[in-house]
Amino acid sequence: MTTTENRPTSTPASTPQPTPMPGADVPVQAEHLTALHSSHTRVEREVTGPNGEALRVPVSRVGLTNGETFDRYTTSGPGSDPEVGLPPLRAEWIAARGDAETYEGRERNLLDDGRSAVRRGEASRAWRGERRAPLRAKDGTRVTQMHYARRGEVTPEMAYVAAREGLPVEKVREAVASGRAIIPANVNHPEAEPMIIGRDFLVKVNANIGNSAVTSSIAEEVDKLTWAVTWGADTVMDLSTGDDIHTTREWIIRNSPVPIGTVPIYQALEKVDGKAEELTWDVFRDTVIEQCEQGVDYMTIHAGVLLRYVPMTANRVTGIVSRGGSIMAGWMLAHHRESFLYEHYDELCEIFAKYDVAFSLGDGLRPGSTADANDEAQLAELRTLAELTERAWEYDVQVMVEGPGHVPLNLVPENVQMQQDWCHGAPFYTLGPLVTDIAPGYDHITSAIGAATIAMHGTAMLCYVTPKEHLGLPNRDDVKTGVVTYKLSAHAADIAKGHPGARAWDDAMSKARFEFRWHDQFALSLDPQLAQEYHDETLPAEPAKTAHFCSMCGPKFCSMRISADIREKYSAARGDDAGVAAAEADEALAEAGMAAKSKEFVELGASVYLTPEKAGAAKG
Amino acid sequence: MTTTENRPTSTPASTPQPTPMPGADVPVQAEHLTALHSSHTRVEREVTGPNGEALRVPVSRVGLTNGETFDRYTTSGPGSDPEVGLPPLRAEWIAARGDAETYEGRERNLLDDGRSAVRRGEASRAWRGERRAPLRAKDGTRVTQMHYARRGEVTPEMAYVAAREGLPVEKVREAVASGRAIIPANVNHPEAEPMIIGRDFLVKVNANIGNSAVTSSIAEEVDKLTWAVTWGADTVMDLSTGDDIHTTREWIIRNSPVPIGTVPIYQALEKVDGKAEELTWDVFRDTVIEQCEQGVDYMTIHAGVLLRYVPMTANRVTGIVSRGGSIMAGWMLAHHRESFLYEHYDELCEIFAKYDVAFSLGDGLRPGSTADANDEAQLAELRTLAELTERAWEYDVQVMVEGPGHVPLNLVPENVQMQQDWCHGAPFYTLGPLVTDIAPGYDHITSAIGAATIAMHGTAMLCYVTPKEHLGLPNRDDVKTGVVTYKLSAHAADIAKGHPGARAWDDAMSKARFEFRWHDQFALSLDPQLAQEYHDETLPAEPAKTAHFCSMCGPKFCSMRISADIREKYSAARGDDAGVAAAEADEALAEAGMAAKSKEFVELGASVYLTPEKAGAAKG
Repeated sequence: MTTTENRPTSTPASTPQPTPMPGADVPVQAEHLTALHSSHTRVEREVTGPNGEALRVPVSRVGLTNGETFDRYTTSGPGSDPEVGLPPLRAEWIAARGDAETYEGRERNLLDDGRSAVRRGEASRAWRGERRAPLRAKDGTRVTQMHYARRGEVTPEMAYVAAREGLPVEKVREAVASGRAIIPANVNHPEAEPMIIGRDFLVKVNANIGNSAVTSSIAEEVDKLTWAVTWGADTVMDLSTGDDIHTTREWIIRNSPVPIGTVPIYQALEKVDGKAEELTWDVFRDTVIEQCEQGVDYMTIHAGVLLRYVPMTANRVTGIVSRGGSIMAGWMLAHHRESFLYEHYDELCEIFAKYDVAFSLGDGLRPGSTADANDEAQLAELRTLAELTERAWEYDVQVMVEGPGHVPLNLVPENVQMQQDWCHGAPFYTLGPLVTDIAPGYDHITSAIGAATIAMHGTAMLCYVTPKEHLGLPNRDDVKTGVVTYKLSAHAADIAKGHPGARAWDDAMSKARFEFRWHDQFALSLDPQLAQEYHDETLPAEPAKTAHFCSMCGPKFCSMRISADIREKYSAARGDDAGVAAAEADEALAEAGMAAKSKEFVELGASVYLTPEKAGAAKG
Repeated sequence: MTTTENRPTSTPASTPQPTPMPGADVPVQAEHLTALHSSHTRVEREVTGPNGEALRVPVSRVGLTNGETFDRYTTSGPGSDPEVGLPPLRAEWIAARGDAETYEGRERNLLDDGRSAVRRGEASRAWRGERRAPLRAKDGTRVTQMHYARRGEVTPEMAYVAAREGLPVEKVREAVASGRAIIPANVNHPEAEPMIIGRDFLVKVNANIGNSAVTSSIAEEVDKLTWAVTWGADTVMDLSTGDDIHTTREWIIRNSPVPIGTVPIYQALEKVDGKAEELTWDVFRDTVIEQCEQGVDYMTIHAGVLLRYVPMTANRVTGIVSRGGSIMAGWMLAHHRESFLYEHYDELCEIFAKYDVAFSLGDGLRPGSTADANDEAQLAELRTLAELTERAWEYDVQVMVEGPGHVPLNLVPENVQMQQDWCHGAPFYTLGPLVTDIAPGYDHITSAIGAATIAMHGTAMLCYVTPKEHLGLPNRDDVKTGVVTYKLSAHAADIAKGHPGARAWDDAMSKARFEFRWHDQFALSLDPQLAQEYHDETLPAEPAKTAHFCSMCGPKFCSMRISADIREKYSAARGDDAGVAAAEADEALAEAGMAAKSKEFVELGASVYLTPEKAGAAKG
């Protein structure tokens, strides 16, 4: 290897192997999983928590035709009835800590559902699930995972994510204590299965959903949520700005097995009828508390957009493209005052500490074009986000930092390197970035290129981009395409970073490929349905699913078959399997092996052909 | 910027600006272009060649609604009638050199069209175009662009590509002379518009087409060719293995405005009825001459797969996945002799020098899974390809070197860095690479991630991967998706490398975005049809094409509008446009600017709203 500049510091060689999960397996019904592929089942493994709790950690188990199984990390949850929601998985763990109490909660307000809340009543009547009073920390206490971690305490949440990631629990606690990772876990969202976001863990993917002035119903949004987590979304952000904001979010949270994020300034703007200059700290604060009580796990706060940074965007090619950033810029322009988010930041920290809501510090000045990448405005804001990170940590509040956007590929790594240096390793959460501006309709791809690269260099979570980016609102298919595209980018980064066990998935797929186990190739793929559909377009017949060839070369000649012959030879030549060790496959062995075998090979019919009999024989 | 490890040596700062093309423009009819978008027209600019020839260098000109135009590099050609072919653009240039002569050519042979040449007769009858006798170098001469470049001679081909790339012609000649770039230009393919492949030039994209035992008709293949170049394929490889191989290739070459590549071992294998062990140097040599006479511009030759390397693949996860590589391995296993391609390599060089066919040295041992990446077998073969590169250069034969395949993202850069070091800068031509194995159905994306990265680090041409990779044969839609995906990857690399003028395209798009010129956004995008289709899904009405908002935020609020307000302010504050220079946008200016403007802003209606009148006003 001539250079290793690009090799991340943590390589497969230097990382610990995954700790096998102890405990017993419990298979669980989950139709939405088997819907993906008949070979997928949800299995919950019982692991004992720090206080003797029985933690049931889920995996998606793939049954293979060779009798083996392969366990995949799953985000899809046990499946829920939209009108009832999910069981409160974490309720007992939270109660057992005894540091939170229920209270009456903020009074509901007609504005909560926006200006024309046409369907609210209807949705509220339809709800058949439990209605819980909100929880918050008792006076003088903090209920954040960071708080516990810093006290040296291992929570069930930490044990759960350690088992999910196959890593030592102490590694999890230490990362949360130091701020290098977060476990978004609002005490009012007990339905969520704990997960961790940090550079030393599996790269996570967020999917944005939410209605807008132009669309859509509550049922549609809950369906989008379930759809997104079924395909692998690790968190979901509800960016609704249309009708029934409060009620839509309520249904999404109650049905969500993953952490839910929001951008509260969107709802606050609706409450002042869309007039940014009429926003006030009180309206915003009230909206944040409303969402804390519902169970939002992390909130995007654009507190880094300062008055003095606004003019830095004046001669950009695309100015300010962040909606939150431009709302705050609009407010500051109107009042010529510093951002109320910045000025009341400590109060926000106090609120977040009472519910364990994590900051997602918004990059309101992110570049909207490759021309504006890494400019003065973007970097000035990042410096402020670093300051805000440290201030949140003083309150034991968990923090991640948002990043771009649109960035030329050669400038991508320094974005995460600067963020990690300046923000002391706080998790980076980026939107792509897109590495070119010229491919609307393909921006899930232009951004997947930037996403895989920035994740390899240390970004902890990737916000997906769908094919509709810059053009319209994503539909169901776009959500799926966006999630699958980002899962493959995240996994590519996991392999590049050498996350323990990440490569095992690729190896299982490659073995299935080499052995022509077509059904297993479908079952193991990120999108089993599409993989089989594409295969069947050319070779629909069922026998082709076991045939030792594919449509690329056709039945007559097959590369893989020749490789099988080679393997046979060199195993045979040494009379044992060790004979295949490429390390020992030197010229001497080659000569010996081939001299002995070449004659016999021809006698056998010298098969670069593939006859059905041979196909059969080769299977054995 | 904290680190620049990933910044390629050539950055925008350090590269020359594009030389404006002199000469007059001639608009040309090209229905297949306007079919992409009504605003696209083919324009040929007349440039004077080194010997006073009138070279007509094409661009695709995009007419914008603001009166500006934007010229795009075009590969689509003037459009051809499949049964007549294209005019012989280069015939006079070749004749003027006086170093080639026509001859009777090799005698056609029933085997040329494969075992069951059912449609051959029919296709031959249909042909209405010219039938030219083959050309080759006169005895004792060489007709390669490398030969001329080394003599210090600037050819019309060199002048043509210099104009196309917007670079000095001497830079082109020097790169071809040194072997760092190639101009694939068989004297028997005068229809092709000259193009250059090398790390200092625009990254190129190859699209594979060709029938197989399972499919398809000659007309379909010619249609796939035209389809591929319309979307931007810089070269096309005909990998036919089915019926009518010779005739299919004939029609493809006669209709191709881009260089055509092949893998002659595929046709040779058909001539011996698919029995690799029955291949002989004579059969292979005869096939190569057959294809040289037809006008194939570059040929993949797997001469680097040596007998002693075969056992190195024995314990790979996926063995040998290259079809050519496994054919040669099969032959060597059967005969236990060194590869006839390696042993007769010098004779191949002599043949290629007579027609100016370029080597594409095949990586027969490329990894077929991330598990096998950068292993002993792959690197041993690369060492041999480096040796073969130097040997071809002794004959003035142009060479590019093929690369993987499947490679974890962190190991991608060293692949091109090793190849460039070992092969003295000969152009690298890679298949992807795919950065994970788990996403069949999305391998155009898993490979686009590796492709953009390896191209940024110096790969000169990318072989596309379609969504059908590993699953089936690409159809028309897959060819388009593959080409567009690879064009965006190549362009992302051009920006990252700072190719002069590459970023201008992105800036034109971003300006159109900022100014809500929707039709221009469609016109400038890689896929105008899809971009408009996606936009219209949410906002079909024609007025939305000029509206100052999009479906993301809806009509009430718009981020871009706020940015326009900011720009107005800071221009106004200084009373001139220089006022917007972000470099000067310091706090003082901010205070001054905002103090002066904030009151007026509110009086004006403090628009984070967007009313139709304002939209109108803002346009002015």
